[in-house]
Parts: sequence; C-alpha cells; structure tokens
Amino acid sequence: MDLHLALDPRRKAASLEEALRAAVTDGRLAPGTRLPPTRTLAHDLGLARNSVAEVYARLVGEGRLEARVGSGTWVRDIPTPVPGARIDRSTRFDLDLRGGLPDASGFARSAWSRAVARSLAEAPGTSFAYGALEGTVELRTALAGYLARTRGVVAGSDDLVVTHGFGELLSTVARALAATGRRRIAVEAYGHASHREVLAAAGLEPVPVELDRDGMVVDRLETAGVDAVLVTPAHQFPTGVPLSAPRRSALGDWARANGAIVIEDDYDGEFRFDGRAIGAFQSLAPEHTVYGGTASKALAPGLGIGWGVVPAGLRDAVLEQRRLSGAATDAISQLALAAFIGAGDYDRAVRGARLRYRARRELLERLVAERLPDARIAGLEAGLHCLLELPPGIAEAEVVREAADLGLRYGGLASYAADGATAESRPPTMVVGYGAPPEHRFEHAIAAVIASIEAARTALGPRG
Amino acid sequence: MDLHLALDPRRKAASLEEALRAAVTDGRLAPGTRLPPTRTLAHDLGLARNSVAEVYARLVGEGRLEARVGSGTWVRDIPTPVPGARIDRSTRFDLDLRGGLPDASGFARSAWSRAVARSLAEAPGTSFAYGALEGTVELRTALAGYLARTRGVVAGSDDLVVTHGFGELLSTVARALAATGRRRIAVEAYGHASHREVLAAAGLEPVPVELDRDGMVVDRLETAGVDAVLVTPAHQFPTGVPLSAPRRSALGDWARANGAIVIEDDYDGEFRFDGRAIGAFQSLAPEHTVYGGTASKALAPGLGIGWGVVPAGLRDAVLEQRRLSGAATDAISQLALAAFIGAGDYDRAVRGARLRYRARRELLERLVAERLPDARIAGLEAGLHCLLELPPGIAEAEVVREAADLGLRYGGLASYAADGATAESRPPTMVVGYGAPPEHRFEHAIAAVIASIEAARTALGPRG
Repeated sequence: MDLHLALDPRRKAASLEEALRAAVTDGRLAPGTRLPPTRTLAHDLGLARNSVAEVYARLVGEGRLEARVGSGTWVRDIPTPVPGARIDRSTRFDLDLRGGLPDASGFARSAWSRAVARSLAEAPGTSFAYGALEGTVELRTALAGYLARTRGVVAGSDDLVVTHGFGELLSTVARALAATGRRRIAVEAYGHASHREVLAAAGLEPVPVELDRDGMVVDRLETAGVDAVLVTPAHQFPTGVPLSAPRRSALGDWARANGAIVIEDDYDGEFRFDGRAIGAFQSLAPEHTVYGGTASKALAPGLGIGWGVVPAGLRDAVLEQRRLSGAATDAISQLALAAFIGAGDYDRAVRGARLRYRARRELLERLVAERLPDARIAGLEAGLHCLLELPPGIAEAEVVREAADLGLRYGGLASYAADGATAESRPPTMVVGYGAPPEHRFEHAIAAVIASIEAARTALGPRG
Repeated sequence: MDLHLALDPRRKAASLEEALRAAVTDGRLAPGTRLPPTRTLAHDLGLARNSVAEVYARLVGEGRLEARVGSGTWVRDIPTPVPGARIDRSTRFDLDLRGGLPDASGFARSAWSRAVARSLAEAPGTSFAYGALEGTVELRTALAGYLARTRGVVAGSDDLVVTHGFGELLSTVARALAATGRRRIAVEAYGHASHREVLAAAGLEPVPVELDRDGMVVDRLETAGVDAVLVTPAHQFPTGVPLSAPRRSALGDWARANGAIVIEDDYDGEFRFDGRAIGAFQSLAPEHTVYGGTASKALAPGLGIGWGVVPAGLRDAVLEQRRLSGAATDAISQLALAAFIGAGDYDRAVRGARLRYRARRELLERLVAERLPDARIAGLEAGLHCLLELPPGIAEAEVVREAADLGLRYGGLASYAADGATAESRPPTMVVGYGAPPEHRFEHAIAAVIASIEAARTALGPRG
C-alpha cells in the first residue's frame, strides 16, 4: 500500500481518503485485504491517528471497507482472505523485494529523537568542530564494546573507523589496498554487483571464487593470485550459507601466510534465527581482517552510518583515503548513535527487528508451502532474505518478467553472479528479500511473489 | 581555556574545580583573565549551570577568583585587564586559528534537536530506506529556495546534490571530471592544500593561476591548458578579495568558449560585513558551474552536510561517482536540515553567526591597532579569517615557531601557496582565522596572536 506516496502533503487526510477509495474501487486493494492499523498508517504518513480513523470510518460507511471487531479493517466482500487468491494481472504492487533491504519504516524514531536531544545537551562545544577522520571516540568506544559482546570482534576503540555506511568503508578500504600495492581481490561468485563495481572503481580487479554449501571454496585462493578477499562469512549473500569452521581456519591461515587482507562484510550478523552462534571471522585473524558492519539493517539505511575494524597495518592508509575523498565528520549523528547504544536502545532495536523478521520468515514459509508446494525455500536461518528454488520448468527470467508486470522488483540468483564466475549447476532460484516491505504490507508482498511465480507457470503452460 | 578537555566525564564538576584551581595556581590562567559566564561554560561542558557557579564560588572563597558585580568572574590580582599584557612564554593556549574554521561551540543545539524531532515525526516510513544518491527531495527543495534567495544561485531542486560536506562534493566532482576526460584543473595560487590534494587524488592535475587584488587573473586560463577551474569568487581564500565584476564576466565567457567547468567554492558567502552584495558566480554561467556550499560555517562542521548545484551535463557522472564511492544517504540529518531551514532557523543561525563574527572582527581590529600599530590588517570585509601583514623585519616562519611554542596553531600566507605558484611580491603575512575559538576564549585568542608576533619581534631584536 504505497498509495501514500501519491498523497498531497498539504491535504494528507483528504488525499488519503481519495486514494483509498480509488484503490478499493478499481481493485488495486483486493477484496479481503486487511488495512494497516490506524496507528501504523498514521505513523507512516505523519498524520494524527484520529484522522486515519475518520477516513476508515467514512469508507466503512460507504460500504467499501468493513470493520471487524478485534481484527481490524478490511476491504469488503471476499469469501477467503488467503493472500494471493484474488490477485490478477492488473494489480500493481510497487514493491522492492531485492535481497538485503531492511524495513526502514520500523525505525525507532522516538528513541532516536531522544538520543539526539540527550547527546546534544551533554556534548562539549568542541564536539561539533571538524573532527577526527576515524569518527568520534564516543561512538568508537560504544561500538568496540557492542561488537565484542554481540559478534566476538576483537577490537579497541582505536581500531574502529566510523564511515558513511558499509559502502563507503568498502570503497575507502579498496582504495587503501590499491594505494598500498594490492591489485586483485577475490569475491564470492554470487554477491552484490555494486560491491564488485566499487572495488573495480578503486582500481582493484575482482576475481570470482566459487561457492558451495560451506561458503566460499577457500582453497581456490591459493591459485587465484589475489592480495585480498571480500567475503560474507556469517551468512553468504545471497546463497545464505555460513562459511564452515574448517574454511574459516583455512581463510585465516591463507591470509597470514600471504600477508593478505580479508574484508568481512558482516551485513546481517545480528539476525540469526536458528540459535547457532556464528561469530565474526575477524577474531581468527584480527591482523589481517577489515571487519565491516552497518546500522542500516538494525536501525535504518537513512542513518547512513557504518563502521570498520581496521588492522593497525592498514589504518593510516585507510584514514588517508578518507581524507582524500573529502569524507566529512557527521559528529552529531555519531554522538546520537553512541547515546543510543549506551541506553540499550540499539540492543532493543536489534531484538525487535529480529522478532519481526522471524515472524515474517514463518509466514513466508507457511504461505509458500500452501500455495507453491513444489517450490523449495532455503537460507531462512538468518538475515533478511531467502532463496526460493522455483518449481520444475520455470525459469528465473520468466518470473522476473511477470514480477515486473506486477510492479514487483526482485531477482533470480543469476542476477547476483559475478562476471566470469564458474557456471554452477544450481536450479533456477529467486532471491526474495523479506525485509523491506513495511509491516502492514508484508502479506501483500508474499502474495505478490507467489502471484509472479504462478503467472510464470501459467505462461509456461501453453508452451511447455 | 580548553581545560575541559581534561575533565573526567564521571566527575565533571569536581575535575573542573581541580583543573581551574591548578590553572590559576600555575599561571596558565593569567591574572586578569575573565572566565566564561557560568551559563556558557556549563553549556560547553554539559554541566548544570549551578554546578559551574558552585565551582566558581569555591574558588572565589579561596581567593583565586574574583566576582565583580555585573561583570563576571575574573582571575584575581591584576592591575590592567588588557589582553596580551601579561602573557609570558610559559603560557599554553591550545588554540587553532587556521583560516576557515568556524566556532562550532555556538551550534544551535536546541533548535537542531527540535528540527530532528519534528522531521522524524512527520516523515513517511519510506524516508529511512536507502535513498536517492542526490539526497532527499525535501532538503534539495529547501536549499534551492535558500540559495536563490540569499546567493542568487539559479537552481531547481533537481539541480541540487547533497553531499557529506564540501570536501566530498569536491572529490566527487573531480572524479566525475576525470571520468569524462578532463585532465587539468586551474587552482588559485593560494588556497587549501587539502583541496589540491583531493583534486590530484581524483586524477586531475592542479595548475596554479596567480592572484591579484581582483582575485584570480582569469585571462591566464586561456594559456593554462585546463579543462576546469576551482575558484573562490565571493571571498578569495585566504587573501580575502572578491573576484571583480570584469573577471567574473571573463570567467563565464572562458567557460562557455571552452566547454569548461568552474567549481565555485562559496565557503563563506553568507558572511559579508561591508554591505556589498556579492552574489554567487554561478548565475553567470549555470551550464558550466558546479556551485558548492556547506552547512559547516553557519551551523557546524559536525553536521557533515554540504551541497552542490551541478549542471545537467555533469549530473549523471557526478551521481555515478557518488555511487562508486559508496556514498550513503543520511536521510535523517537531511530531513532535519530541511525542517531547520523551513522553520527559519538557518537564517537565524546565519544572522547570529554574522553578528558574533562581526563583533570579533571589530575587537581584533582594535586590539591589533593598539598593540601592534605597525602591523596591517586586510580581508576583514567578509568571512571568518583575515590577513595580518607583519611589522617590518618579522618573518612568517619565526611567528609560526613562536606561536607553536605558545600552543597556537596558525600559518603564514606562504603555507597556503600552491606548489609551482608564481612567486609574488607579498610582504610576510599571517592568516588569522577568527572563527574557531569559542566565544569566551576569543580575547584570549587574539592576545595569543599578538603575543606570538611580539615574541618573534623580541627574538629578532638581538639578531637584527
């Protein structure tokens, strides 16, 4: 229900009413769709809750919506509320379900506002001047403690560098590697294309290394002729497997033997659902590892804060590259995040997000089992995305095309493959990010995924 | 009085008392020094005003301080409170008076907290997701209006790109210029060394062009073989002259004739004291100018926000370079700044800062006239720094050395010269930034400047 994107900011309530009425009338909001609770929608739209309740009440009065006691407000006139049941080709979803996107609408606004106010009131005046390239000592100290406690990272505050998200860390470290004579960097055969582009722009050549069910095949590094490696040990992106314990040891040994640097992208290490404790790789080879993390998943990408734990031998080169790229301090956000962590709000945000994502994962698993019994889900043990192995005969490209027709953006596994990666015998598989949709649209999102696959199957019918 | 830097955060009041007592006792706080008002110091240190008042009261009781009715608290036992009168070689100032630094301690904390709270409450949930590389539409719209109104910049919100300060804009634009085939960029003979380093790191060759009393000698560009130029038209940094009207026209003509790009660093365009309205150059050649500004001077560097107005022909290249450097959105700060501008708080901050800096400028002029009648001040018409032409016979290097002995950091004009800049017949001149010290230390700062020059003169005596 991204209808709010079309709202007129000068008359939000009135245009919400018009948008909802139109969407129900023309079927974009299918019968049986449950509307978001008034409080959630009011919060998302920046409206008073009463205003949303009044809009709902008027549409109930018009017979378009139905209020069920204790169960919210629904679009009227449907026999069964099974998601996906009534979706037809004219529905437009406007949903981005690519892997790696969190639900930013859950951002803890009030707690963040309080952290900003508190940290501003307490900080000395010197805090707001041009600051240290490595970030504020307050945040570096808070992060060192947090990462040791939750991820087993071995770091003092002096090892931390605060960046504008993981992307800037990757770019900066890549330029530091190039500036210190490194030329080739191993990447996982599947991963973010944007990461490979950032590495290449920094002057490094990305060299794909194959993956299997234990993660990156580390012994290939010996012959790859690389000086560094970018890897996602806790939860390979996007295939979802952790790097096995023997591979971790082998990776540490390789780095030490070759004086190489491992860039550990711990993008969603906090979101593990199966009870296995998979700590950071960094503690196995702290002298050779740049550990990277981000506040984008647990809080929101809009915060624009990430961090790196940088080995002493690379620290000066990294800070020099930050300086040469004109990286500015954003001390005010950093002080607020330090206060946020200090007050326990970050732990609370992680726990809250983990609960929400766990519930989504269970719903996703149940709905796919019900409606696509011949599809197979993998990689649900952690993170904000999973793999959906398509029913026999359906091709990734066909699903992507049908999804695009529905206004749904997500990709097949092939779209994450590095150029030149060894072809592997993987069945056609979609990467489904279940993080991004706001809470009240999540069932809708899964319905859309299912609809896109069913449409691909239908399209297949006459031909196959 | 950066004594607060040594305070123990767990017992601030007690350690303030100890630090003050020690400083008075050992003479670091000279007799006749006026202490900051309790409110100011409490604010700077994050203490309750009462706690500071109690510390003062105890030291008054000990006879170390003296409370004068209606005139504040002073270090006891001095005949005349003329700044600089009693400064001896054992005094350590710990002051950074390099050009271009604003007084961050004046940052409007409360108004900023309110802007954060308001913008967070009103923003739709989608605001906090990974956002557009060019920044939020809210801030771009607010900035387009502000820049048109205050600087005469010709821009719509689509022309704006929000960056992590001017430094990141410069680095990004430089890489975009290199990526589109540009190789050489003219720079002013005097300027920030860090800017020239950023350009070189991006793959451009900085080519110094001489300055005179009308700013950059624009007709040298014809033969310099450059594709672009970085210039400070409103208030040349650091010599302080504006680019004259004929030179502006010539610069626009040159850019149009050569398809060249002018990067306009409008670093302190808002701080003009002499009533001359010197608008941005950009309006003369919007198709060929990247206009750059920053919130660092009017608000605080700690905000980490700058902006560029980018011509349509360069926009895609600039955004691509932002992507490849992993620049993240910091939508939350951007939304707050948009709210801050919208509420009139930014205008208020500029006016307040202008008043403070004007008062500083007048005090500086008066004290130098009194104590260094054979020195000459220039460049006081705008900005946060001025030139101080040294009394005859005193060399820049000698003043820099004496200043360093006093814990004072500022540089001679020569330290801003580009490598390979044509030697010019300028008398030895110091660049004095009068922005950075907090309000209550400003007189102290000027006393330190005067002391450093007097010490150089004394050192000269026996030799000369």
